[in-house]
Amino acid sequence: MSNSPNIEKLIEQLRILPGVGPKTAQRMAFHVLAQHRRSKAKHLAQTLEMAVQTVRHCDSCRNYCESTLCHICASPDRDPSTLCIIESPQDVWAIEQTASFKGHYFVLHGRLSPLDGIGPQDIGLDQLIKRMSTTSVQELIIATNSTVEGEATAHYIAQQAQPLNIPCSRIAHGVPMGGELEYLDGNTLSYALQARVQLDTDHVDQR
Amino acid sequence: MSNSPNIEKLIEQLRILPGVGPKTAQRMAFHVLAQHRRSKAKHLAQTLEMAVQTVRHCDSCRNYCESTLCHICASPDRDPSTLCIIESPQDVWAIEQTASFKGHYFVLHGRLSPLDGIGPQDIGLDQLIKRMSTTSVQELIIATNSTVEGEATAHYIAQQAQPLNIPCSRIAHGVPMGGELEYLDGNTLSYALQARVQLDTDHVDQR
Repeated sequence: MSNSPNIEKLIEQLRILPGVGPKTAQRMAFHVLAQHRRSKAKHLAQTLEMAVQTVRHCDSCRNYCESTLCHICASPDRDPSTLCIIESPQDVWAIEQTASFKGHYFVLHGRLSPLDGIGPQDIGLDQLIKRMSTTSVQELIIATNSTVEGEATAHYIAQQAQPLNIPCSRIAHGVPMGGELEYLDGNTLSYALQARVQLDTDHVDQR
Repeated sequence: MSNSPNIEKLIEQLRILPGVGPKTAQRMAFHVLAQHRRSKAKHLAQTLEMAVQTVRHCDSCRNYCESTLCHICASPDRDPSTLCIIESPQDVWAIEQTASFKGHYFVLHGRLSPLDGIGPQDIGLDQLIKRMSTTSVQELIIATNSTVEGEATAHYIAQQAQPLNIPCSRIAHGVPMGGELEYLDGNTLSYALQARVQLDTDHVDQR
């Protein structure tokens, strides 16, 4: 409809952003082309191009960073003997925000999925195994998502760690803190029942 | 939280897009940085920069285009004597999609809003008045939005057209086709009652 091929191209290409359909892309394109937003839009374009060019994977944990090692792997305050394995860089953000983990990470950038042709090497498991055999990793905490593929990936990693005598744990599943039972899905609830933990009765009596 | 300043910048700058908050911007940034999407992201960045650089206002109607005249103003099939005045380039798209208007447009890129310091020259009204006095414009159809500012803009334009003896019309307001009365706001309904049109009884009888 528009007679500007560059607007058409922009609308088409904005759709690579997640959750952006044709209507939203059109709205975005016209929004950034308004005269008073053009310098900001140019800045966004340059930052996007620079991010694509400069952001790489940390040599040690495969998290996004701009140098050889990310700030977590380079930090002397972090314990490299505990390794938390997650699917995506966003998961690093989520765990870091809790400030309750002081070890290192290993980012898979995916999960095992043979049907999609994603094997161990595609998610860096060769690099992980090399790291487990050559450095002093003493514990693996596997925090892949609790989907079918995430669970399969967790089991595969645990199998690889076994001959190296590295203990593997999986993050706990169950009722979210503050969550109400009636709103919870059946799977989580039935898992929470099975994985119940003994109450510390001394502690309970003291109340 | 991330140790990549360029990711931080990208997240911050993605927020100039309409409807994008901090969480969505973060999701978008990580989404486009996935290895298999990087070439597309680079392409988007280049297209955005090129659009910002090349898309300009048509000399005649101020719609977005990449040459001196847009394809509507340049077309020999359109009638330059009828001018439809709208607030934004998106409105051109909306009207063109109906295929029911064959005249020319004039895009204000805004509306009169003295409180925000937007006067007649900021929305190109000097250019519009010049065009009305020098070319053969025979009718103005004012299709600004029916907000307080849109109505004020419509009245201002009508006032300017009066001494030039150019008839001005305003697009009709009322019940949307297929709309149901019970879901309509009171303002629209009361306007629709006042602006009722005589039924063609001959036509009704033929049914």
